[in-house]
This record gives sequence, structure tokens and C-alpha cells, in this order.
Amino acid sequence: MLPGPTNVPDRVLEAMRRPMINHRGPEFHRLHESIVEGLRYVFQTKGDVYALTCSGTGGVEAAIFNVVDPGDKVIMPVGGVFAERMAEEVKSVGGGVIEIPVEWGRAVRVEQVKEALDSHPDAKAVALVYNETSTGVTARGLKEIGELAYKRGVLLIVDAISILGGDELKVDDWHIDICVAGSQKCLACPPGLALISVSERAWEAMKARRTRQSFYFDLLACKRFYEERRETPFTPAIPLYYALDEALKMLREEGLERRIERHRLCASALYRGFERMGLKLFAEPESRSNTVIAVEYPEGVDDTKFRSTLRDEYGVHVAGGMGKLRGRVFRVGSMGVVSKDDVVYTVEAVANTLNKLGFKVPVAEVIAEAKGVFS
Amino acid sequence: MLPGPTNVPDRVLEAMRRPMINHRGPEFHRLHESIVEGLRYVFQTKGDVYALTCSGTGGVEAAIFNVVDPGDKVIMPVGGVFAERMAEEVKSVGGGVIEIPVEWGRAVRVEQVKEALDSHPDAKAVALVYNETSTGVTARGLKEIGELAYKRGVLLIVDAISILGGDELKVDDWHIDICVAGSQKCLACPPGLALISVSERAWEAMKARRTRQSFYFDLLACKRFYEERRETPFTPAIPLYYALDEALKMLREEGLERRIERHRLCASALYRGFERMGLKLFAEPESRSNTVIAVEYPEGVDDTKFRSTLRDEYGVHVAGGMGKLRGRVFRVGSMGVVSKDDVVYTVEAVANTLNKLGFKVPVAEVIAEAKGVFS
Repeated sequence: MLPGPTNVPDRVLEAMRRPMINHRGPEFHRLHESIVEGLRYVFQTKGDVYALTCSGTGGVEAAIFNVVDPGDKVIMPVGGVFAERMAEEVKSVGGGVIEIPVEWGRAVRVEQVKEALDSHPDAKAVALVYNETSTGVTARGLKEIGELAYKRGVLLIVDAISILGGDELKVDDWHIDICVAGSQKCLACPPGLALISVSERAWEAMKARRTRQSFYFDLLACKRFYEERRETPFTPAIPLYYALDEALKMLREEGLERRIERHRLCASALYRGFERMGLKLFAEPESRSNTVIAVEYPEGVDDTKFRSTLRDEYGVHVAGGMGKLRGRVFRVGSMGVVSKDDVVYTVEAVANTLNKLGFKVPVAEVIAEAKGVFS
Repeated sequence: MLPGPTNVPDRVLEAMRRPMINHRGPEFHRLHESIVEGLRYVFQTKGDVYALTCSGTGGVEAAIFNVVDPGDKVIMPVGGVFAERMAEEVKSVGGGVIEIPVEWGRAVRVEQVKEALDSHPDAKAVALVYNETSTGVTARGLKEIGELAYKRGVLLIVDAISILGGDELKVDDWHIDICVAGSQKCLACPPGLALISVSERAWEAMKARRTRQSFYFDLLACKRFYEERRETPFTPAIPLYYALDEALKMLREEGLERRIERHRLCASALYRGFERMGLKLFAEPESRSNTVIAVEYPEGVDDTKFRSTLRDEYGVHVAGGMGKLRGRVFRVGSMGVVSKDDVVYTVEAVANTLNKLGFKVPVAEVIAEAKGVFS
């Protein structure tokens, strides 16, 4: 139950065993087309989509490096580790960050973005993290932010690494110009690929640029190679392409709406179970993520001891806090192929672990509470 | 018989089916240490080695972006597509390329590098491609170039993507400061990882830098994460780490010297077979690669027809020419787990294909010639 890499179904693991193929040959072209079709479905876009051989952070680097010239202003709400990382990327290419400081555990308000746009009519882009993996916060106002940015002619760049496939995200309808996701999160694929969508407006901005920041992450080259030959500019991680293709097929078999509903139910059961234990949830109620659940430790419960007991005695892996939340919270990933059984078992294991560590929890009632969500 | 991705043994494919693990947990730490040990063996270094989640070109980008500041001078012999690509990387970060033009099919002479060093005593680095995959040329003077650069206090950056594990390459003895290789070449692992070694001198240069060009490819972050926690800064492609670990184990079982000797014999059989067919080899004799064999088409033989016949009727995949050699040569990869049988079968298939296309070849004599190398 990590916030990525998540468990990978056998079908997807099995797909990786296929022999290598020439990435400049017809078999690869067909595989690539199939992946693009699957990605368009999950991103809900008719636009361009790519699978880059790198981690999600590499995908964010591609998004930023292809759009931001030195001196460009980018409006960025910052309320967690991954938003901070994205802001560093902007600064590292000489971009100016117009930061909207957001309290950790809360989401940016649409009004704040509007004010920043009013004060900085020359901004080139708004860039934000839709689902902040470090705090378990989802920016629920993304649709409205997209409309605002679109009306002002400002690009919208979204880090959706830990949420694509697990919650609402409509790239075209919401006017998202560049959207980045990771293979190892809600798609239940192994890590190693960043998935990225690019709008027409983003292509125009890229073509108009004065500089080029990266050779490896050149999205215009990705576009050229895909359109002309159904290929990638550089050798792709072929086994991961096999895996992604299979994972996207499984997602289409389930259906995106049903997958999102399953994520909602599972997250809801976790939230209710943890609350019934008397634990404090880190995210404000209206911004709670359906894919990453951050929970504050009660007084006297030690992070390392809690997570190692949970892992060694119950086989449940959860993550610790990041940045200034290290030691203060634990984070449960509720992503990918997560099921009712996984969730109820996790709630029970956390309850038992807390009891062992001296924090009294009514285990049976907690389990009933979590199960209740599914009935 | 492609110049990468090469065939991958079942043991290595099977390794990828293992379930995902937390890249921030003890199982991953052990896997990572095992990979580092294997990489040190094949790079022949006591220094630092990393497996980056990206293609070989990403590895070259990491090498250049971590060392070259705007305004830095880099001496570069350029005689093929991959050297051109490396020069573009240097230019894209504002570095000045002191180009040593090298005729395609030939290797740079040590004397030329010496002259460039004499004329540009302020150069920060020499950067070159050890094995030019586009032309089938190996820069046999690399050891001497390493000594020269070392004496002058100039860094040596080497693209060894298509040769590491298939020919002589002694990172420490030859004073190579940054060496880049690819997983999908002589190591017979799937594509998706770039392998990179870093010397003490290179670390000093990185620490003294004024700018940082990439967040994703930050080698100092790789160093910090490995030393402090045996981790990677960002989520690695776990299945490819499994595969690489297994491929490195197989390499150690065979022994590096025996693997190199096998590559030599296989390349030699291919060269002799092709010469016996009356074909012209593209590389000058003293610089012929043991891992990539580039062969000129005889008058009247069409590239597309030749390669599709070879593939569809004999199941042998070879690559076409790149850049200005497109349509002029075909390229055979002789890498990884390549064996006598693979090589003899390839020679026979090429001979039969040429006969079909009207270029007369004495098939039996050609096969005997190739087989003779192994006896």
C-alpha cells in the first residue's frame, strides 16, 4: 500500500517477458500506436501523448524545460515537496517563480490563482501539482483554474503523477496544456515511464521558444518521430512499453469511470477507518486525495517502529513523511489494482500495530466502519 | 543481430517478473549494492557507478550537463552520428566545441588530440565516442588519449554505449573521468538504463561548477543518495534493475575477458565472411569495431529490399545506415550473447539474400570462411 510503486498484476509482469524487438521496426510501431491510443483514453484527450523513458520527475523536467525560457514568469502554488521540486525545475532553467504559498495540508484556492494572474498579466504559465503525494492533498479547483488560464492565454502545466487513472482528470475539457503522470501509480504498471500529454497551445509555445534546454527531453522531437515513423527519438525501455500497453488494456477493460469509483471507495474506507481509530488526517476534508492518504501519528507513536512493525508483522508497506513531515505522518497509497480486501486488511493491520505500540484502538469497530463504505 | 537492443537471455527476462519492491526499503538497497558491484567489475573501476533510468543518450546528457558550464571549451573528435549528437549536447548548454573533424569510417589519431590540447590549453574536457555505432569504428587510441588528458589536467568523457562489456575498456587505468554505457548492448539486458562511471576528478569539477543544467540528471544527487541510503534520487525502473543485476551476474559467470574474446571472434568471422562475399567494409581496417559491423551495399542492392528480405525470409534483423550513410550501408550488431551459430547463420542469410537480389555470392565458401575463424 505504498504511494507507488504499487502492486503490479501478473498479466502486466508477464508482458515484460516478451523478447526484445527493434524499436525502428513495424512491431514496435504497432505497440507504440496501441500505447498512444490507451494513453489518450486515460488522459481524456484527442491531443498528443507520449511515454518517456524516465521517472515522473523526468516527465516534469520535460514539461518545464520545453516551455520555460530564461526570464519567463510561472505562477506556482507551492504546498508540498513535489510542488517545491517543480519550482526548483523552473528556477534551474532561469524562469521566475511567482509563488502562491499554500499551507501544507491545504489546496490552492481558485481565487488565489486569479489574483496572481491579475497581478502578473505577463505570466507565461501556471504550473501546479494536482495531487501532492507528500501531503495527500488534491487541488479540487483544477477545472476552474484551467478555465481561468485558458481565458487569459496562459499555459497550464499539471503534475498529475500520482492521480492519473485514479480520479477525475479531463485534459481537453479542463484546458490542461501539459499533463505529466507516472507509470507506477494508478495505472499499476512498473516504474520507469513518465506519461505526458501536450496541447496545441503548448506546441505553439514550444515552437516559438528562443532556447532549448534538453536534448533527451525534447518534446518536439518526440512529436516528429511519432508522426513520421511511430517511433521515439531514442531507444525506449521496451519491456516497460509492453507492460504499459497491458496495463492500459486492463484499465480499458475495467473502464475509467469504474476505476475512479473504486479508488474513491477505497480511499473513503481508509479515511473512515483511520478516523474511527482517533487518528488525525493531514489533509483538510475538502481536499483529501483519493489516491494518497496522509495520516498524522498520535502522540508517542514512533514512525520507524510503526512502519517496521506494520511491514514485518503484517506485510503491509506504507511510506513515511517527506520533507518537513518526516516522522510526523505516514502515507498510504490507495492506487492501481487496490481492492476492498486490501483496504480492509490495511486498516486492520494499522489498528493492530497501533495497539501493540500502546495506542488503544477498538479493532472490530474500526474494521466494521471501513467495511461499511463498500456495502 | 541489431546494434541494440540485442537478444536478451531467458534468465534476464524472467528476472523482470519479480514483484515490485519499495525503492526506499532494504530489499532495494541490497539490489542496488549488487548492481553497483557488477558495474564496477565491467567498467573496471573502483570509483562510482550508477544506473540511470533513461536511454544511452540520456546518459550522455547527464555526462555533459553535469560537467560543462556555459563558455567551457570541450575538444571533440566528430566522425559519426553519435559524436555529432554529443557535440550538440555540449552546444545546447552553452559550451564551446573545439571540433576535430574525422572522416566517417576512420578514428581520431592520438596526435590530433594532442595538437588540439596544445592549441587550447584552457579546454575543460576531451569528449569522444569510443565506439561509433553509426560507422562501426572504434577509437583504438583511447588509452593514449586518456593518458594525455590526464597529464594536462583535462577531463575525459567517453560515450562507450555500444562497447562496454564487448571490448577492452579500463576506466581507471585509462583515466576516463565519465564513461557512459547502455544496458541494451553488450550486457544483453533490455533497454531503458544508462550506466555511468564518475572519477574523483569529475566530482571535483562538478562541485566547482557555477550552474546546474538538470534536476533529473544530477549526478551529485545520485552520489548523495547512494552513499547515504543506497537509493536513487527518483523512482528507478525496478524491473530493469532486476534485469541488469541478472545480466551482470551472467557476465561475471562468463568472465569479462572471455566475453571480450567471444565478441572479437564473432566480429572477426563476420568481417571475413562479408569480405569473402566481395563486400566493402565501411571502417578502416585498424579501427574496425568488434561490436558493430558496418558494410557498404554493392552497386544495385537496395537497402529496404535487402533488409526486409533478410528479415522476412531468414528472420535476421540488421540495421540500416544513419545520417549521411542512410541507404549506403547496413549495420550488424555483434553484441551481448552473440554466438558462433548466430554469426554463421547471419553470414549465410546475408549471402543468400544477396544472391536473391542478383549480387552473386559463393555461399558455401563464405560460410567456410566465417566458420574458419572459430577453429
